[in-house]
Amino acid sequence: MKVEGKHIRSIWLEPDGWSVSAIDQRRLPHEFVVARLKTCDAAADAIRSMLVRGAPLIGATAAYGIALAMRADGSDAALDSACKMLIATRPTAINLKWALDDMRSTLRHLPPSARAEAAYRRAGEIAEDDIAINTGIGRHGFALIEAIVAAKKPGERVNVLTHCNAGWLATVDWGTATAPIYLAHDRGHAVHVWVDETRPRNQGASLTAWELGHHGVPHTVIPDNTGGHLMQHGMVDLVIVGTDRVTAKGDVCNKIGTYLKALAAHDNGIPFYVALPSPTIDFGVDDGIRQIPIEQRAVDEVTTMTGRTADGRIETVRVVPDGSPVANYGFDVTPARLVTGLITERGVIRADRAALAAAFPERVAAAAE
Amino acid sequence: MKVEGKHIRSIWLEPDGWSVSAIDQRRLPHEFVVARLKTCDAAADAIRSMLVRGAPLIGATAAYGIALAMRADGSDAALDSACKMLIATRPTAINLKWALDDMRSTLRHLPPSARAEAAYRRAGEIAEDDIAINTGIGRHGFALIEAIVAAKKPGERVNVLTHCNAGWLATVDWGTATAPIYLAHDRGHAVHVWVDETRPRNQGASLTAWELGHHGVPHTVIPDNTGGHLMQHGMVDLVIVGTDRVTAKGDVCNKIGTYLKALAAHDNGIPFYVALPSPTIDFGVDDGIRQIPIEQRAVDEVTTMTGRTADGRIETVRVVPDGSPVANYGFDVTPARLVTGLITERGVIRADRAALAAAFPERVAAAAE
Repeated sequence: MKVEGKHIRSIWLEPDGWSVSAIDQRRLPHEFVVARLKTCDAAADAIRSMLVRGAPLIGATAAYGIALAMRADGSDAALDSACKMLIATRPTAINLKWALDDMRSTLRHLPPSARAEAAYRRAGEIAEDDIAINTGIGRHGFALIEAIVAAKKPGERVNVLTHCNAGWLATVDWGTATAPIYLAHDRGHAVHVWVDETRPRNQGASLTAWELGHHGVPHTVIPDNTGGHLMQHGMVDLVIVGTDRVTAKGDVCNKIGTYLKALAAHDNGIPFYVALPSPTIDFGVDDGIRQIPIEQRAVDEVTTMTGRTADGRIETVRVVPDGSPVANYGFDVTPARLVTGLITERGVIRADRAALAAAFPERVAAAAE
Repeated sequence: MKVEGKHIRSIWLEPDGWSVSAIDQRRLPHEFVVARLKTCDAAADAIRSMLVRGAPLIGATAAYGIALAMRADGSDAALDSACKMLIATRPTAINLKWALDDMRSTLRHLPPSARAEAAYRRAGEIAEDDIAINTGIGRHGFALIEAIVAAKKPGERVNVLTHCNAGWLATVDWGTATAPIYLAHDRGHAVHVWVDETRPRNQGASLTAWELGHHGVPHTVIPDNTGGHLMQHGMVDLVIVGTDRVTAKGDVCNKIGTYLKALAAHDNGIPFYVALPSPTIDFGVDDGIRQIPIEQRAVDEVTTMTGRTADGRIETVRVVPDGSPVANYGFDVTPARLVTGLITERGVIRADRAALAAAFPERVAAAAE
């Protein structure tokens, strides 16, 4: 998508053919800084420190990390050591494990001297595959937006509400929840996005608003408390969010607060869609509320906020009284009954066991093994 | 309630018998500063600048403002001018108008030399009346908490979720939503409060957490996104919030985000109560969603956050990208069907037209005139 008028991805190979660049997402939205990654250590650091974040982008960064390691040393020992270092950076990220397994199986039967070239090629493919998945999601989600456009008066805008960042910054390009929005915008439809700020980490205000703004998509940042009121007053046409995990029966685990928006959408008869690459579906888990463990994160994400002062300094301020305990649950689960549909690269699928099994028979078979 | 171990109110007459002190709520939670009000101008400034806030406290402050004016000059002209200045400070606050009308009708038939004494006496009564209303709310709400205690194992805590600040800082003492909680705590019940931080102004984190902490009530500050997850997992026994206006059929207008918590409570079979002094019921309005205009407030409440840096400075930081538009709706409306009951000084009343009319027949008659 676009930044300062130029097309850019969240990660890319430099013209030198070996070094890798990524947007330093820790500095957004106040500073746009590109980090050059020249070693596997640097790639691991980038993941660990959340210079890059978002499951698909983490996978792509890890793949390039292996390529950087192989460039320095193509030995079995170097491959093992690179995989070990990278997998430890974000132990729960499923795409990280998937990308590293893929890279290892691609490389291990090759002679050490051939590994660097093969690793760069495969890392590039992993990045391109992510973009292909997201353009698929974009195409299927776009059809939903187009149907709403058709029912509106000419020129009337389509209002989409989203929560957190499931945008291109979380992927290599296009994003998941944002892919249909970017496609609709690029094709000339008047689309406007309500962006939940998404406390406590504020990924909506910091990342989603930033990327929509740079691409020129009309949007409005709102406190997370606002969506219900907007829906009651006809100001939201559909909700599209991303997800960290979908269960076999269609329960959706996503950023904390998603469930509240799904309830409001349901109460007001507004469609609530979840956009996802199909590997996010976990056919081994059924009841999301009972079975998915919810991570509790550091309390300083709640007690403090970081931003820019009027004179341009970046400061962190405490916003909770000293001594008041704080809880920080990272995710919640939206039951399938509140989900209108799952927008995947294979189409829009009903959030129920039968529909998911019919759309992904090979995954159900694999989970049963 | 208690601050630093001592019992204190939000506003009080000093032992000198004429000057008035109030907690400077703009400085909370990081600094506890008491402001001494010695003139009507100072009282008006205190209301205008939100040194004091909360409808009942604004009313009491205005009443004392009239007393301060009468002490300086008991003339008709001084009374008119004081009323005019005070009513302009927060034009939409209903308690402000009510308190000023009350003071004027108390004073205007008295000789100027008798007005100061009568004004202090009446202002004191207005403050005491507020406390009496809140202790009534506390007593009726306490019965609800006691019923939950009775159903629990001995020692198991009762978890109450609240949104925004309907605490003693918004009133003269006890608060509305917090009155039942303070009473339960003072009577030795193990009560714990989930405090929504309540973006954008953060009154939950800044005020509710501060007052609960000083009174010794166990509590935990949570992002506004969290309540649904807690309710899904049995971690909330009841919700109690305050309100700015209740309609004749029981719709509840309160701080933005209240509706989302009501939906989650309903979805999880958790009682959702609203605590209010009965003058908050507006028998002239019926459908809250269609009829109550929702104030849009300054965007900097959303784009910036104020807090304390690690080295003790108070700083304001911007948390939204430059150029991203922002919307800031102050309130939302929770439809009566989601409200379990209204906790008033006359008892707990069902949120429907018939029950409200039966409880307040004189108000219905007055509204019909």
